Amino acid sequence: MSFQNIKGTFDYLPKEQIKRNEITNKLSKIFESYGYLPIETATLCSYDLLASKYAGGAEILKEIYTLEDQGKRKLGLRYDLTVPFAKFISLNKNITFPLKRYEIGKVFRDGPVKTGRNREFYQCDVDVCGLKGQLIEAEILTMAYKCFKELGIDIYIEWNNRKLLSGLIIEANIDKSLISKVILAVDKLAKIGENGVREELKDYAIENSSLDKLFAFFKLKIDDLINIKTDNEILLEGLKEVIELQNYLDKLHLDICRFTPYLARGLEIYTGTVFEVFDKEKRITSSLAAGGRYDKIITNFIDDGCEYPAVGMSFGLAPIYEIVKLMEEDNKSLYDLMIIPLDTEIESLKLANDLRDKDIKVIVEMSNRKLKKALDYANKTKIPFVIILGEDELKNKEIEIKDMFNSKNITISLDNIDKIKEIITNRR
Amino acid sequence: MSFQNIKGTFDYLPKEQIKRNEITNKLSKIFESYGYLPIETATLCSYDLLASKYAGGAEILKEIYTLEDQGKRKLGLRYDLTVPFAKFISLNKNITFPLKRYEIGKVFRDGPVKTGRNREFYQCDVDVCGLKGQLIEAEILTMAYKCFKELGIDIYIEWNNRKLLSGLIIEANIDKSLISKVILAVDKLAKIGENGVREELKDYAIENSSLDKLFAFFKLKIDDLINIKTDNEILLEGLKEVIELQNYLDKLHLDICRFTPYLARGLEIYTGTVFEVFDKEKRITSSLAAGGRYDKIITNFIDDGCEYPAVGMSFGLAPIYEIVKLMEEDNKSLYDLMIIPLDTEIESLKLANDLRDKDIKVIVEMSNRKLKKALDYANKTKIPFVIILGEDELKNKEIEIKDMFNSKNITISLDNIDKIKEIITNRR
Repeated sequence: MSFQNIKGTFDYLPKEQIKRNEITNKLSKIFESYGYLPIETATLCSYDLLASKYAGGAEILKEIYTLEDQGKRKLGLRYDLTVPFAKFISLNKNITFPLKRYEIGKVFRDGPVKTGRNREFYQCDVDVCGLKGQLIEAEILTMAYKCFKELGIDIYIEWNNRKLLSGLIIEANIDKSLISKVILAVDKLAKIGENGVREELKDYAIENSSLDKLFAFFKLKIDDLINIKTDNEILLEGLKEVIELQNYLDKLHLDICRFTPYLARGLEIYTGTVFEVFDKEKRITSSLAAGGRYDKIITNFIDDGCEYPAVGMSFGLAPIYEIVKLMEEDNKSLYDLMIIPLDTEIESLKLANDLRDKDIKVIVEMSNRKLKKALDYANKTKIPFVIILGEDELKNKEIEIKDMFNSKNITISLDNIDKIKEIITNRR
Repeated sequence: MSFQNIKGTFDYLPKEQIKRNEITNKLSKIFESYGYLPIETATLCSYDLLASKYAGGAEILKEIYTLEDQGKRKLGLRYDLTVPFAKFISLNKNITFPLKRYEIGKVFRDGPVKTGRNREFYQCDVDVCGLKGQLIEAEILTMAYKCFKELGIDIYIEWNNRKLLSGLIIEANIDKSLISKVILAVDKLAKIGENGVREELKDYAIENSSLDKLFAFFKLKIDDLINIKTDNEILLEGLKEVIELQNYLDKLHLDICRFTPYLARGLEIYTGTVFEVFDKEKRITSSLAAGGRYDKIITNFIDDGCEYPAVGMSFGLAPIYEIVKLMEEDNKSLYDLMIIPLDTEIESLKLANDLRDKDIKVIVEMSNRKLKKALDYANKTKIPFVIILGEDELKNKEIEIKDMFNSKNITISLDNIDKIKEIITNRR
């Protein structure tokens, strides 16, 4: 019993792990083409770092796995990649800004386990530190589009601006002290509807007319919002940023982006643009990636008088994997070819090595089982091609490639490695 | 102070992480061409699993990081990938054998920190479970050769057989009860010499004539060992395996392999062939990869009456990285091109995206700094090419690619993306 996996942790079989690696490899390649470079940060952290004032807040504190080393130092396992990113910047004083980095790594949370929430899981974060403005936001949204296109997933992106949202709440004559509460409630608007949001807010004695006004704002397009006559500074600033970004998105023809004025993305960290990526076909309803601008976290964390504006996006590897799994047929073999030696072990190894040099995935039968058993194995694991290499084949310098799906054989010269490669790769 | 990295843990900068990823990508690709498939196992394990009888033994127990979850279950961080591999096999009853898998993952040990020994580090293990015999050993050694060739590292491989070594110790008339002690001592022969080994064994009252005989055996080649007249079964069995493997290695022309009859590779786990890979140029003296046959561990761990013979190799990513770092010149830019927009932000983003689609790594200047500052940045980070995109360039549909190393400019049509790509990739 003790040898079961512990709750909220998983092992991944080859066919699962191959797909997971394909996803991260595709993403990494695109990130790097956009100038984001990989870093890696430590998993074990000092507990003080993880619990520091500018880190994740009280909720996450309860979920930190804590441990002690032999020197009785209090340690914890990282629960996200943002705190380590801030620490990374503070420890590397000679970084040239803007710093564009990505990190794909495991994080740990001792929280409730349910579908999509595990105790150890990967985060995949792309962030830039040291740039203000909306152009970088436009570039990140372009990159997100490219990433999902490459993965074959049709998406749309909801986006908003936190300054605009705060401004609209103030503009609706709701008391400033309630901004956080209202943001928390309207963030659920798509899920629970107007009545649900009113219900959530019922204890705060907000005038009905204010809420009416707020919900009316949420139905406006950017072109309508521009016409609001106001001297509400945060609203004006938010509007300016929203217009600038929309202008970029128009010119980049990024019409998968939907301005969504009630989108909030949690409570504290974000200071400007926020965005959330969804599957167009709704195979998964939670977001596939999300992020936004957070100009204060790193600035406050480092606290050296400089500003460290930042914006980034986190890709949800788990929901992406779930969709990729649904899309791909599952009966693809994990190998290209099996060679069965009949007293030709060394020659089989050599042939296998020649083909491996040409990027063919080859296994050589070494189990000493009967030929029929070996062919059964090839069938069962759906290996598309088999070569039986006997002494006759060596003598005649000619082999037969058994096509396991069509039960036909192709006779070919043993030396013609390129042709063998061609036959095999045509099937992939 | 609490925001320092904790002892024995590290963050990796982009230029370091890029090299580390290159190494693991090259290795993974070769592993897969040999039919080894990736799996991933959980990092958090039940403490009972890690401390179980057939796991790492008393020494490693002291180095396990232990923790408790909110449900008061006792957990530990994995300290190797072998215990999780055995658990993986025991949990997946419908695996088809032979199972060829690799896993690259972080492990944790709360042990002494020194050069090359950290508290968290990657292991990279390639193993096959379910195959006996020497052919698979020959294939693994071939694969190791291929891996290091691909990495540009000249190696040699020392190899031996544990049955042969035990057999030679018995043949030298040393008491069977002392085999483990003697193996532990002769494993250091290359480091401490004959006298050192004698000194290590001085408490066990072994006859000098026995040790003389043993050291004489160690100087013999396989062809000489064959001539030993004996009915010592373990020696005969070991010899048979050594001869078989040497025969394969000869036919595969794997002349980087050096039979080394005193090589032991630690005390308990190995049951047959053992091997250790070294840098030919001795830039690093510790081994770069090592492994061997361990037929008992998984068998005893699962304990279901079946046999689970296994053989594998562990690649030392840390020493490999150290050598690769020494080999490569360090002034390669991490980007291919920087585009500096002069009031052409959107067109610059579009040009960047077109080039990214062609696998060029592009950054677009967005810091609002003066042109000279931007060019200084490009110089400092050794970006090889810069394009300054102004309105004139857009109007004339012609750009200049600034070659930052030769201070010359190449004028080219803005639409000729393929030509721009060609100029840039020629430099890489």
